[in-house]
Amino acid sequence: MIRVGIVGASGLAGGELIRLVTQHPELELTFLGGSSKVGRRPSELHPGLRMDLGLTVESTADTDLSDRCDVVFLATPAPVSAALAGRLADQVPCVIDLSGAFRIRTPELHERWYPQVERTAELVDRFVYGVPELVGDQLAGASLISLPGCYATAITLGLAPLTLGLGLDLKTVLIDGKSGSSGGGLSLRTADLHPLRNGAIAPYAPTGHRHAAEVSDFFERAKPGKIATLSMSAYGVSHVRGLLASSYVLTDDEVDARALQRAYLRFYKDKQFVRVRRNTETLIPVPDPQAVLGSNYCDVTVMHDPEGGRIVVLSALDNMVKGAAGQGIQALNLRFGLAEETGLTAQPVMPA
Amino acid sequence: MIRVGIVGASGLAGGELIRLVTQHPELELTFLGGSSKVGRRPSELHPGLRMDLGLTVESTADTDLSDRCDVVFLATPAPVSAALAGRLADQVPCVIDLSGAFRIRTPELHERWYPQVERTAELVDRFVYGVPELVGDQLAGASLISLPGCYATAITLGLAPLTLGLGLDLKTVLIDGKSGSSGGGLSLRTADLHPLRNGAIAPYAPTGHRHAAEVSDFFERAKPGKIATLSMSAYGVSHVRGLLASSYVLTDDEVDARALQRAYLRFYKDKQFVRVRRNTETLIPVPDPQAVLGSNYCDVTVMHDPEGGRIVVLSALDNMVKGAAGQGIQALNLRFGLAEETGLTAQPVMPA
Amino acid sequence: MIRVGIVGASGLAGGELIRLVTQHPELELTFLGGSSKVGRRPSELHPGLRMDLGLTVESTADTDLSDRCDVVFLATPAPVSAALAGRLADQVPCVIDLSGAFRIRTPELHERWYPQVERTAELVDRFVYGVPELVGDQLAGASLISLPGCYATAITLGLAPLTLGLGLDLKTVLIDGKSGSSGGGLSLRTADLHPLRNGAIAPYAPTGHRHAAEVSDFFERAKPGKIATLSMSAYGVSHVRGLLASSYVLTDDEVDARALQRAYLRFYKDKQFVRVRRNTETLIPVPDPQAVLGSNYCDVTVMHDPEGGRIVVLSALDNMVKGAAGQGIQALNLRFGLAEETGLTAQPVMPA
Amino acid sequence: MIRVGIVGASGLAGGELIRLVTQHPELELTFLGGSSKVGRRPSELHPGLRMDLGLTVESTADTDLSDRCDVVFLATPAPVSAALAGRLADQVPCVIDLSGAFRIRTPELHERWYPQVERTAELVDRFVYGVPELVGDQLAGASLISLPGCYATAITLGLAPLTLGLGLDLKTVLIDGKSGSSGGGLSLRTADLHPLRNGAIAPYAPTGHRHAAEVSDFFERAKPGKIATLSMSAYGVSHVRGLLASSYVLTDDEVDARALQRAYLRFYKDKQFVRVRRNTETLIPVPDPQAVLGSNYCDVTVMHDPEGGRIVVLSALDNMVKGAAGQGIQALNLRFGLAEETGLTAQPVMPA
Repeated sequence: MIRVGIVGASGLAGGELIRLVTQHPELELTFLGGSSKVGRRPSELHPGLRMDLGLTVESTADTDLSDRCDVVFLATPAPVSAALAGRLADQVPCVIDLSGAFRIRTPELHERWYPQVERTAELVDRFVYGVPELVGDQLAGASLISLPGCYATAITLGLAPLTLGLGLDLKTVLIDGKSGSSGGGLSLRTADLHPLRNGAIAPYAPTGHRHAAEVSDFFERAKPGKIATLSMSAYGVSHVRGLLASSYVLTDDEVDARALQRAYLRFYKDKQFVRVRRNTETLIPVPDPQAVLGSNYCDVTVMHDPEGGRIVVLSALDNMVKGAAGQGIQALNLRFGLAEETGLTAQPVMPA
Repeated sequence: MIRVGIVGASGLAGGELIRLVTQHPELELTFLGGSSKVGRRPSELHPGLRMDLGLTVESTADTDLSDRCDVVFLATPAPVSAALAGRLADQVPCVIDLSGAFRIRTPELHERWYPQVERTAELVDRFVYGVPELVGDQLAGASLISLPGCYATAITLGLAPLTLGLGLDLKTVLIDGKSGSSGGGLSLRTADLHPLRNGAIAPYAPTGHRHAAEVSDFFERAKPGKIATLSMSAYGVSHVRGLLASSYVLTDDEVDARALQRAYLRFYKDKQFVRVRRNTETLIPVPDPQAVLGSNYCDVTVMHDPEGGRIVVLSALDNMVKGAAGQGIQALNLRFGLAEETGLTAQPVMPA
Repeated sequence: MIRVGIVGASGLAGGELIRLVTQHPELELTFLGGSSKVGRRPSELHPGLRMDLGLTVESTADTDLSDRCDVVFLATPAPVSAALAGRLADQVPCVIDLSGAFRIRTPELHERWYPQVERTAELVDRFVYGVPELVGDQLAGASLISLPGCYATAITLGLAPLTLGLGLDLKTVLIDGKSGSSGGGLSLRTADLHPLRNGAIAPYAPTGHRHAAEVSDFFERAKPGKIATLSMSAYGVSHVRGLLASSYVLTDDEVDARALQRAYLRFYKDKQFVRVRRNTETLIPVPDPQAVLGSNYCDVTVMHDPEGGRIVVLSALDNMVKGAAGQGIQALNLRFGLAEETGLTAQPVMPA
Repeated sequence: MIRVGIVGASGLAGGELIRLVTQHPELELTFLGGSSKVGRRPSELHPGLRMDLGLTVESTADTDLSDRCDVVFLATPAPVSAALAGRLADQVPCVIDLSGAFRIRTPELHERWYPQVERTAELVDRFVYGVPELVGDQLAGASLISLPGCYATAITLGLAPLTLGLGLDLKTVLIDGKSGSSGGGLSLRTADLHPLRNGAIAPYAPTGHRHAAEVSDFFERAKPGKIATLSMSAYGVSHVRGLLASSYVLTDDEVDARALQRAYLRFYKDKQFVRVRRNTETLIPVPDPQAVLGSNYCDVTVMHDPEGGRIVVLSALDNMVKGAAGQGIQALNLRFGLAEETGLTAQPVMPA
């Protein structure tokens, strides 16, 4: 059994990690770390979880995990991850960070979107970043892994067949993101109270989102110059879990609907967690995040719109699973040589 | 008192018209027409309405309204409106159509988006089309009025200050629309049942929407050539009433955030139902349709995004009020010389 | 015009009062009071409200309202209302309190449910308490009015025809209350964040609710001994506005369905805000709070269940309108000799 | 591997069975039956499911399952189950019926609540009925199993410690049930369309529910005379999956809070799917169906309310899992000698 620690165990991502780790046949949960909820049992913090784990939240600062964990997840705010990652990497074979602290490589871009998060270039270089489907065998044996943001995962998986697969030159990528309230965690903000958030279409990031910067940074390093401009607007809508990223793409390259569909199917042929779907193939229009709820799937649909000659790419995922904890388990599986889907075979819970 | 008839009284728009007409100090409801629910009282069809109106649904086909109505609303499907409008216009001084039958003027465009709706060019020419804020004094005395679609209203009000006000040349307009389930009415479709619609982000029109065609047609006639390409994707999200239209605009003209804001304020200075707002001016990000619920307001926000040099225009309205019945009352007021806001002074019911 | 002040203008009830006062033809808003949001404009605190009122929140403590208001609403927590009511009653002709500070008359009962709220017996005696429909002409000219709680209003209107009308002896009254999240206001509590509150059926008061004490106290004074035991359980469900109170009643008196229905119709014959409805009279089962949303109606249905010989009474209202601000306006109208429905004629906004 | 067939594969319960069977390590799905959707792949009918099962819906009427299945689930309407059960029991070793066709044993009671469902007494006698936790070893080797209704499961598990455990005499049991929209399936009914169902508190069965008859019938046979009267009212609230049953119990027997809590813990000591919880033990009040979503748990809380001397029992479950398909798998496991939790170890997906 691989021994797993979770720092940030009291937050939503921490709870999701506990859920997935305890369902995983090869993992054993051996440490729960935090700062504010020391001494609390998981069931006090996560209403759905009530198994007896024999663990309570411990202070991460005071604990040496050398003998207790083979891998540690950081489900912590970016500044906390930045402060902890190096130290923990000296104690355990693998650290997997869910925060934004180490996602953007380009220093100026990082400083613009995470001005409060300091890190050394040397540490950044040691991190493997990326959606598991796109980073090949880099995860095998990695000691530091930075997981993409939830939107970044959806957008990157949506655009990769165009840029990395077909090699198109994208003049303009306009992204419209729609997500549920779980993306905001459990911080106390008036605008996130149920009376103000229910029924909302909240333009909370209408002209900029750091996940867009993360996507640009990734593609620029993976295949420089293929995306000329990329911008994003993000909205909170009236549900809890799941997001849909709509990417509207303008290109001067020749494309047609059939070639696009074929290219997507080919690109994701062996990737079991990416499902290339047609918009009208089932009872409801897809992709729709409700059709991936609770699962590690990312559903992707590509279309060509003669109106304005644009490509429309839609990608949906569960921000808590494929957008966070599930992708973390997927990376862990690849890191430790397990089958990629181990512990992640749950089908979507739908309707819910 | 102006005597009002409503055809299509059993649908959602019909119910909303009954609600607004009975609250209006200068209107008297004298006729409810329909085909399938003949003999039913309004309270049987509209659970919230239980005042005794002394009216039941009558068959429109068999009825001459010459002596009973000064104005008739058609809250009917486009083919029904197309069939009824001419005949009713011979009976009553004013017919106001809420359907898409007469919205698009250009014949080819109409045929593409409403292939099943036949109409004569002569009848089309007699209609005044448009958002009341933008058609000046054309409504005064009009005998046939075609109201814009809910999305078309939001988009047109959002773009008019750019095209009609500043006279910008818009190279690309990409519209992302998000709406609640009331837009689909009460037709029985599996995908609209609560278990499949709740929690959804449903890409129901990912590459084309006839309201976009309506907007293009309007602007092309109002000021030809200002919009090079306009495309739209539309999504159903998990609430009932209200929509948000996001217009992402690319232009080679010089613009900056401050000039845009000033232009919008100036353009709508005397328009009481359009509220130009800043994204962060209140407790929640705006515009958000929950902040206009039940009212005739359209909230508009304009921003300039240095990322990609785009203009972002957001417009929110209640699709049942400013997007349908309320705008119908507003047009009626202007048609009959009443103050524009008569019967429409209800403030938003929020939170709801 | 009657000049109105609102203390507690930044909360949900305060916002609802602003909405209703500004729509009322005989009222003029002249004062907004508060403690924490001094200097803020209403539109900053209430996203839907954006009319220019020329008012900002002022410190209530520092202000003498003698020359500024004819009536003051207290939309404040009970301890604040208890502290302010007497002083304000010396300054203005009428004070209307929306809190629980003065609702329960019996001292021991008050102390049990509001241990932190001190008040003098002399001040309590000056208050008129009750649902306007049930207190006859006591409101005319009253200087101090205590409005019932939202649940208390629904339950009292639901039970009154049995106790005050038919004079039945009720052995057991078991109340099950279901309400939306707006009842909890905008205080920052983790359990009220959207991710934890959406989709919930939250048993937040499973064995006791102070509104039940309020109801017992009212009926015991109105007609002693008619209710032997009354208990309540309350649940938060997944919407924002509106509540349904289910009262399950056991009695040894003879009753049948038809007599009950007749008694309810007779009891509320002249009460325009109480609508006695049959469960299956319209498209959806009623009463349902969505069918009164935004209006001052309370919908009531009574049934006799042969199973266990119980009476089932269901009452639904909008907790922000008939359960708070709207009922406040209704009381004001009666206090100042206006028609009871002035400013309250809005029909339900449905669907929403 | 145990070979499993599902009749009624196109409905919500059918889809949930497919989800659970394909995740189960000892089961193999070998047959999908139906009447109306013959030839369709599961992914066309269940938007979340997109694995290639190599199966399409076949006509049940034309098919002999003798060589294809070891067990068949009937996720069909009661009349269909009544017609099929006997015939299928001749073909396969075990038939598990999710409908109400064989739940109520007492003939008069069955005829009252299922007047359209004919069945022979001989067939009824061959069925094992009941919540697995309460029927001991009757399931081992059973050839016909009738699963309790979703509400019946929750209520029976909630009351069993009082009647079967403590042996109390319950004078009055009043049940108030609150459930999401998935309980109604995907039949096309206007009242179940999203615009009318969202935000609702719908009293759809205010004075009677056949699950209450089922519960009475079960307890009367298990321990005659312990419940004098039992009645139920049921409400649809604004979410999709999960229900809460509140049982308000009056008894003349002596009870206190501590003894009740102990009795419940003792009664369910070895039952891994029943979690006895305290109302305030975690972040949100429990039991709440959102804390069991997607899992096979039933959460139960018992309280004593001095107000009126009543016992309050709350039980929450996911109506699609513990209330239907999951309980079916649980029964199958016990029938075939597998560990009870096989394939059912998924923890709740929360928040969702």
